[in-house]
Amino acid sequence: MLIVMREHASQACVDKVINFIESNGFETHLSTGKLHTVIGAVGDKVIDPRNIELLDGVQEVIKVSSGFKLTSRMFQSEDSIIEVNGVKFGGKYTGIIAGPCTIESYDQMDKTAEALSKSNVKILRGGAFKPRTSPYAFQGLGEEGLKIIRSVADNHGMAVTSEIMDTSQLDLFEKYVDIYQIGARNMQNYNLLKEMGHVNKPIVLKRGLSATFEELLLSAEYILSGGNREVILCERGIRTFEKYTRNTLDLSAIPVIKKLSHLPIIIDPSHGTGLRDKVAPMSRASVAAGCDGLIIEVHYNPEVAICDGAQSLYPEQYDELYKELKQIAPIVNKEIY
Amino acid sequence: MLIVMREHASQACVDKVINFIESNGFETHLSTGKLHTVIGAVGDKVIDPRNIELLDGVQEVIKVSSGFKLTSRMFQSEDSIIEVNGVKFGGKYTGIIAGPCTIESYDQMDKTAEALSKSNVKILRGGAFKPRTSPYAFQGLGEEGLKIIRSVADNHGMAVTSEIMDTSQLDLFEKYVDIYQIGARNMQNYNLLKEMGHVNKPIVLKRGLSATFEELLLSAEYILSGGNREVILCERGIRTFEKYTRNTLDLSAIPVIKKLSHLPIIIDPSHGTGLRDKVAPMSRASVAAGCDGLIIEVHYNPEVAICDGAQSLYPEQYDELYKELKQIAPIVNKEIY
Amino acid sequence: MLIVMREHASQACVDKVINFIESNGFETHLSTGKLHTVIGAVGDKVIDPRNIELLDGVQEVIKVSSGFKLTSRMFQSEDSIIEVNGVKFGGKYTGIIAGPCTIESYDQMDKTAEALSKSNVKILRGGAFKPRTSPYAFQGLGEEGLKIIRSVADNHGMAVTSEIMDTSQLDLFEKYVDIYQIGARNMQNYNLLKEMGHVNKPIVLKRGLSATFEELLLSAEYILSGGNREVILCERGIRTFEKYTRNTLDLSAIPVIKKLSHLPIIIDPSHGTGLRDKVAPMSRASVAAGCDGLIIEVHYNPEVAICDGAQSLYPEQYDELYKELKQIAPIVNKEIY
Amino acid sequence: MLIVMREHASQACVDKVINFIESNGFETHLSTGKLHTVIGAVGDKVIDPRNIELLDGVQEVIKVSSGFKLTSRMFQSEDSIIEVNGVKFGGKYTGIIAGPCTIESYDQMDKTAEALSKSNVKILRGGAFKPRTSPYAFQGLGEEGLKIIRSVADNHGMAVTSEIMDTSQLDLFEKYVDIYQIGARNMQNYNLLKEMGHVNKPIVLKRGLSATFEELLLSAEYILSGGNREVILCERGIRTFEKYTRNTLDLSAIPVIKKLSHLPIIIDPSHGTGLRDKVAPMSRASVAAGCDGLIIEVHYNPEVAICDGAQSLYPEQYDELYKELKQIAPIVNKEIY
Repeated sequence: MLIVMREHASQACVDKVINFIESNGFETHLSTGKLHTVIGAVGDKVIDPRNIELLDGVQEVIKVSSGFKLTSRMFQSEDSIIEVNGVKFGGKYTGIIAGPCTIESYDQMDKTAEALSKSNVKILRGGAFKPRTSPYAFQGLGEEGLKIIRSVADNHGMAVTSEIMDTSQLDLFEKYVDIYQIGARNMQNYNLLKEMGHVNKPIVLKRGLSATFEELLLSAEYILSGGNREVILCERGIRTFEKYTRNTLDLSAIPVIKKLSHLPIIIDPSHGTGLRDKVAPMSRASVAAGCDGLIIEVHYNPEVAICDGAQSLYPEQYDELYKELKQIAPIVNKEIY
Repeated sequence: MLIVMREHASQACVDKVINFIESNGFETHLSTGKLHTVIGAVGDKVIDPRNIELLDGVQEVIKVSSGFKLTSRMFQSEDSIIEVNGVKFGGKYTGIIAGPCTIESYDQMDKTAEALSKSNVKILRGGAFKPRTSPYAFQGLGEEGLKIIRSVADNHGMAVTSEIMDTSQLDLFEKYVDIYQIGARNMQNYNLLKEMGHVNKPIVLKRGLSATFEELLLSAEYILSGGNREVILCERGIRTFEKYTRNTLDLSAIPVIKKLSHLPIIIDPSHGTGLRDKVAPMSRASVAAGCDGLIIEVHYNPEVAICDGAQSLYPEQYDELYKELKQIAPIVNKEIY
Repeated sequence: MLIVMREHASQACVDKVINFIESNGFETHLSTGKLHTVIGAVGDKVIDPRNIELLDGVQEVIKVSSGFKLTSRMFQSEDSIIEVNGVKFGGKYTGIIAGPCTIESYDQMDKTAEALSKSNVKILRGGAFKPRTSPYAFQGLGEEGLKIIRSVADNHGMAVTSEIMDTSQLDLFEKYVDIYQIGARNMQNYNLLKEMGHVNKPIVLKRGLSATFEELLLSAEYILSGGNREVILCERGIRTFEKYTRNTLDLSAIPVIKKLSHLPIIIDPSHGTGLRDKVAPMSRASVAAGCDGLIIEVHYNPEVAICDGAQSLYPEQYDELYKELKQIAPIVNKEIY
Repeated sequence: MLIVMREHASQACVDKVINFIESNGFETHLSTGKLHTVIGAVGDKVIDPRNIELLDGVQEVIKVSSGFKLTSRMFQSEDSIIEVNGVKFGGKYTGIIAGPCTIESYDQMDKTAEALSKSNVKILRGGAFKPRTSPYAFQGLGEEGLKIIRSVADNHGMAVTSEIMDTSQLDLFEKYVDIYQIGARNMQNYNLLKEMGHVNKPIVLKRGLSATFEELLLSAEYILSGGNREVILCERGIRTFEKYTRNTLDLSAIPVIKKLSHLPIIIDPSHGTGLRDKVAPMSRASVAAGCDGLIIEVHYNPEVAICDGAQSLYPEQYDELYKELKQIAPIVNKEIY
């Protein structure tokens, strides 16, 4: 932490700041410039910088370390590679997860999985508990849905991922899923994150609608510090002023996260745009930018989907896209299963 | 719902849209203009408007009803007035909640409550479980903290409010608090909201950092539709590009919410600005705009506060502010206890 | 500027950074902590911090000085008070500007001014050139409009303010207005700001729709550094995700700007909310927060207004509001003409 | 425009709305549903929807037509292709513009152009007038700079583009540039846009920092409605809460704009990210998403650049990127010169 004093701040002010910081368990070191005196504070304690800002003579307090440690590239320089059912995320691998937004019925899941298996999909997605803005909207099939997706995935040799919404669902999910998914609205549900630190399976952690990359990494830090190192970060669009897309997919997440962290970063172009005809261009863009994976909504017949059909691809569209992605990946030294 | 067809859309397109909507359980009615044909769809079902937008010939789909019902002024025209320990929120009453950000010790709570009781405060706040961005930051005293605040409040004839973070804490909170507080990060924690619908105590529901008023009301709708009508809405600042304040306190929440809903709307100027010297001006502004209450952070000695001391008032500052607020309230036909 | 080196950055890296900074005309001073070395750079030159961030071993570069000088409280500690036609803005004075959004006709301006003069309004506003999002919307009466407002104002003993949109209008405005108004969309029209530095009349400078306070002050700095010290800053609402209000009026502008700068800060509750029934509560809030002035849209008959009638007050509403404001002002040690 | 009446609004209210709309020159048509009556209003006039919203019984007013006409795909279904110096933007063509942020000297421009000509660049960019947030930052070489870029471009068989900041610079730019560039801060400088409607050269129109696509298209509409049909739209990043990138590059601009409009959409990954190491991934992503062009900052030696060197590529990096882009383009049926 750096404390920048105002121009010509008195020695008494400087001393008071130093005393305050040291009494909070920090070591200080002083640097006196022509205009400003700067006090460096080094230590492991957490202190609210605003407490210092309110002291006389202080102009600004600057946090130096970002607070993420285990997720940081400094902690681990080589890429983390997370493998599920033969599909790898991270390093030179671009993994793919596909499936419908919501589990509607055995038949719907089976038809979709059947179609996807022809395009080499090995990890099936589908929501059993749905976070809906309105209490009057369809809330998902619950455990019934988890049973369906597990059974269908087993029949097609696929792994399962689904969104967990609450700590009360831990035992339930443990039985059915291979990858836990934490949704955007739960990115800062700290009780849930702490529990994710204790499970033995990978986590897909989605960026919150207005979260910064730093906050995303700090949420991942909750999981890693609990003992679970298998976290896949997911960009799924942020809220902006734009109205023609549901969210604004921030593809700079790819180079930014890969520089800051060793964790894989995947993209959800379906929620990220909210419209089927934007999914293919943004998927191609993601691969060209070097993403470590994609999670794409596909429904055997989007026209009858209960939820988010508008952003789901038809299986034929998915297959065509898959072939394009396979062509783009090697140009950026990536491999798609 | 209104479906606006493109200029000169063919009759076949119009028919297809009508069939689609009716097959989803809606009644349709048609309106043909010089340029655009508009199809009205009336019904109780929830349908994703994007599914219609993707049909040929459709230009735009417009949702007419907002989805909040029980929270709406149309459902109940007179103001809801919520009373706790003699303090009223809503109607012509402006209630006040005060106390430190975090429960640190018996001594800290007692000294603070002692000071506040001289300024007529009847509801004490204090966090026992803290939602912290970093896993390495202080996470609160937990149940020990709840015991402290309960005991201190009882000694000073005060009621207690504290933030619940997870459904696993329900039994615990039931024992200690008089008002449940749902924090901004949990505004869309739907499992928690559903449980709040089943408790017999008032809820303070805080607006999410990037939530709209409509989303806030829909989250309240989760609670009301579960059976609990005692919801106090709370504006606590939204995330904007501004860096000189921690958040941007949106005081238009007051006239906007009071028009849309019968529920009381209170303001948290402490989190809303993040800096002590902004708390008094924004509190005065809130009362002048007609708010139904305030929740203000006060610490007997903010300089030693573990958390958010920078935004906590000194007791003397609070007392002075309280006197100013008492002067402003009657000008806008409000009464402060 | 402070350059924070990565943990354990080599001496060679540190040396390279020092050389680079010094070769750009800065004096450096070094501070070595347990984990991080920090290099302070002092000088008047402007250097892009990203150029330093790209050097090996650099973790972060932090700008210390904000760049606004003449607008800063450090440059001038006492409040600037700007007086026009007997109305003062700043210090203990809260000045008021009122009038319609757009100049429509002599009759409209005259009826409005006639009504406003009964409520003590001494500065009349009205747009002659309108910045409209669509090229097909009414663009204002142009010079004809300026002639009307000047003539009407003269008849009622009022001063005139109107928005200038382009440097090509300088001679025109010089003839007709007493206060130049720079609209939100032109807050960073630097050619126009430079010209405003050379006129001999006060400027009302509106905050851009997504501008920060720092950017607003830097835009003011353009004017002050050109020689014109009479700048009145104006908060008029920022763009946020909220849809129930046209913009989000950020009243924290008042305590924040008054701390950073000696310039007066006034509020435009009409554009800030976009709806008539929000104007009165937000005006009262502004005065309670200690603003230095208000600019309020009033139309003798808003129902027939060409532009923004929905946010214009009726003269009777204005008069009632004026009386409330006069009651609130003394509570915060302010005086309204 | 559609006016949705409240549930059970009285016939008198409905009649009053109809009268109001018709008296404003619109034709109305009525649609009566079970819950809501909807009134359609058709006409060419511009009316402020809020004036209707304030009438009794009105729930909501919805604008149907977006207001952009000449820029719309409905007006012209085939892609506009704009050609400058043999480089095409639009249709199946992806054009490239490259060069430094700022014109610093003849030598700097010449060395940069010399290097770029080896990578087939035919349009040279460089700023002579720079919009800087601070009045104390380097403001550009002015006409001297325009002379340099013209001369250097002529020597290397290149065309020239540079940013015009004000209507007072029209004659100057007419002499030196082949493409006028309108910067993000001037996207809503309507006087300047109107003048651009009268020049005989293509315009690159950059999206404002917080502008929506609709606003961008409406600004383009100003130019097209003035008579100049050669507008190239440019996405250059929007302001979001993210701090690790200078702006958030919104690549969904590509599929969204191409659906709404016939105009070419190009991407500026240099300003869009602000950091050199993000430029290549985002450029590849842009081409993979099907953009009609790129504008990329390249400096013969970014380390000595006066401005934005941190986001400028080295010529070798540009050349490598160019080769990758040439490989990606055909996968999405595009051609790069």
